[in-house]
Amino acid sequence: MPGLGEFDRIDRHFKPLAAGFDGALALSDDAALLTPDPGETLVLTTDAMVEGVHYLAGEDPGRLAAKALRVSLSDLAAMGARPLVYLLTTALPNSVDDAWLAAFAAGLAGDQERYGIRLAGGDSVSTPGPATISITAIGTVPDGQAIRRSGARIGDRIWVSGTVGDGALGLLAARGQLAGLAPAHVEALAGRYRLPTPRLALGERLRGVATAAADLSDGLSGDLGHICAASGVGARVMVDAVPLSPAAQAACAADSMLAGLALGGGDDYELLFAAGPDAGPDVTRIAAELGLPVSCIGEIVAGESVAMLGKDGRPVGLPPSWEHFRSE
Amino acid sequence: MPGLGEFDRIDRHFKPLAAGFDGALALSDDAALLTPDPGETLVLTTDAMVEGVHYLAGEDPGRLAAKALRVSLSDLAAMGARPLVYLLTTALPNSVDDAWLAAFAAGLAGDQERYGIRLAGGDSVSTPGPATISITAIGTVPDGQAIRRSGARIGDRIWVSGTVGDGALGLLAARGQLAGLAPAHVEALAGRYRLPTPRLALGERLRGVATAAADLSDGLSGDLGHICAASGVGARVMVDAVPLSPAAQAACAADSMLAGLALGGGDDYELLFAAGPDAGPDVTRIAAELGLPVSCIGEIVAGESVAMLGKDGRPVGLPPSWEHFRSE
Repeated sequence: MPGLGEFDRIDRHFKPLAAGFDGALALSDDAALLTPDPGETLVLTTDAMVEGVHYLAGEDPGRLAAKALRVSLSDLAAMGARPLVYLLTTALPNSVDDAWLAAFAAGLAGDQERYGIRLAGGDSVSTPGPATISITAIGTVPDGQAIRRSGARIGDRIWVSGTVGDGALGLLAARGQLAGLAPAHVEALAGRYRLPTPRLALGERLRGVATAAADLSDGLSGDLGHICAASGVGARVMVDAVPLSPAAQAACAADSMLAGLALGGGDDYELLFAAGPDAGPDVTRIAAELGLPVSCIGEIVAGESVAMLGKDGRPVGLPPSWEHFRSE
Repeated sequence: MPGLGEFDRIDRHFKPLAAGFDGALALSDDAALLTPDPGETLVLTTDAMVEGVHYLAGEDPGRLAAKALRVSLSDLAAMGARPLVYLLTTALPNSVDDAWLAAFAAGLAGDQERYGIRLAGGDSVSTPGPATISITAIGTVPDGQAIRRSGARIGDRIWVSGTVGDGALGLLAARGQLAGLAPAHVEALAGRYRLPTPRLALGERLRGVATAAADLSDGLSGDLGHICAASGVGARVMVDAVPLSPAAQAACAADSMLAGLALGGGDDYELLFAAGPDAGPDVTRIAAELGLPVSCIGEIVAGESVAMLGKDGRPVGLPPSWEHFRSE
């Protein structure tokens, strides 16, 4: 339902993004059509990003577009789903010009190719407030094979892909608040915040291997807490086993306060998953084939709490929540 | 990907809305699951509403929620689809309190029952700007039976349900700008603007009868123009045949400038459709069975323009576009 003034912009910038998907009806109808293949379950997720809240004001539009898409793709990855189509809603101030939109669309186009997803529809409205980007991503998974949060069992090992904490530290880096750090580390961290990598290939391979999964968007303890709550179990995490990037290690070494942030912060978009105690060889083989490191960081236990344990086996102080940090 | 601070609100207000749909996974997973029935095509549509742009600041939250849902349901109606599930994205200022959210959720709950749709998922974020509500609605239609905009053929008659212009005039009424009008008329028009009725039952019945359809969101000439463009045809509309409500008639009689607005304005959410020249009896029978008046207002012709013709068969001046009006 775009206003008349929006149709030219949609024709110019967004219609090409729908070209590969007939069901989009060239963005020229009231709605899009989607006929899933038999035996496929659709996986639906929506994420919104507000300028100045979820991304830095003045962010590069192409990178912003890609991040908005990737945040939703990360949810599909956590369910073991393969991307199919997405719907895009933009609420943009009138100050946004054609060049901005062209760069935004180019960012989407690049990631559409990279991740095999097409634009099916959306809405484009104006706002007197900050730019707000919302994406509904739709993926597919064979019936009954979606990886849920609720399947973790006592004795399962807890795994995480890649490195943890780069997103939270990267926000500080992008804001210029890690001035003492080597420029290469600052750049590495800021890059991880600005443009995460959804772990789609890993998610697909974890079908039938992982008992539960979530993506790291709210922070390790928070997201693991969600898995535990959904599964009716508790968890123990060995803090020293949590993988940190060289840049994050350097940041934490320089300022011990940052270690808590690295563990508690979100926006990493790595996969956090549980797998049975005998699944280790499968997990490590998959990781090796994908060239994506995975780390075993703990164990599912009876109870309902997430314990973060230090070298001595005693709980370490809980890091501040990411949400609190973001709203500072 | 709600922030931690949002989880309580989601539990309290939104989780109950997902209770009737198992695939929502109680809003406690990374995404929702949807397995369509064999032979069903999914119909996907997204609409966003910004406070102060698409609805009046301070609007009643329950009515706002219902309108946001109904605007998307109207798109499903235009495709002949039956509602199934929806995803809800809210970007709300911190000033929104629990009572507001409770009323907002109650508005959704009422319409979920009324229209047979359930909440599947969504996102809930905060914004320093105006409240922004975005809904992705998903409906179903038997494979191959969606009513498209592109099927209108020369000689088809053009029909519209209900009355036209109440939405545009209703915005003026709601703003107190129709002071000379009888209070009952003001109330009737404002009510139509504030809470439209999606013509879902009519849309379903028009499968196989209508050759093309759209909902009246951008205005009669604009939406008919979309059908013509998609179908590669033109249209002639007899302005005197366009049905106006008693309230709209009174408003137009009092101020002839308002007649153009009634014809050009949007937000009516009636169905505009084309049907073959022999389909009249079917259309009128369906309308009678539904208790919803329909009016034949013109004809599809060769060409590519929409002509609005007066009593004398000569074109009347094109009304101002709704988008222009809205942004004034």
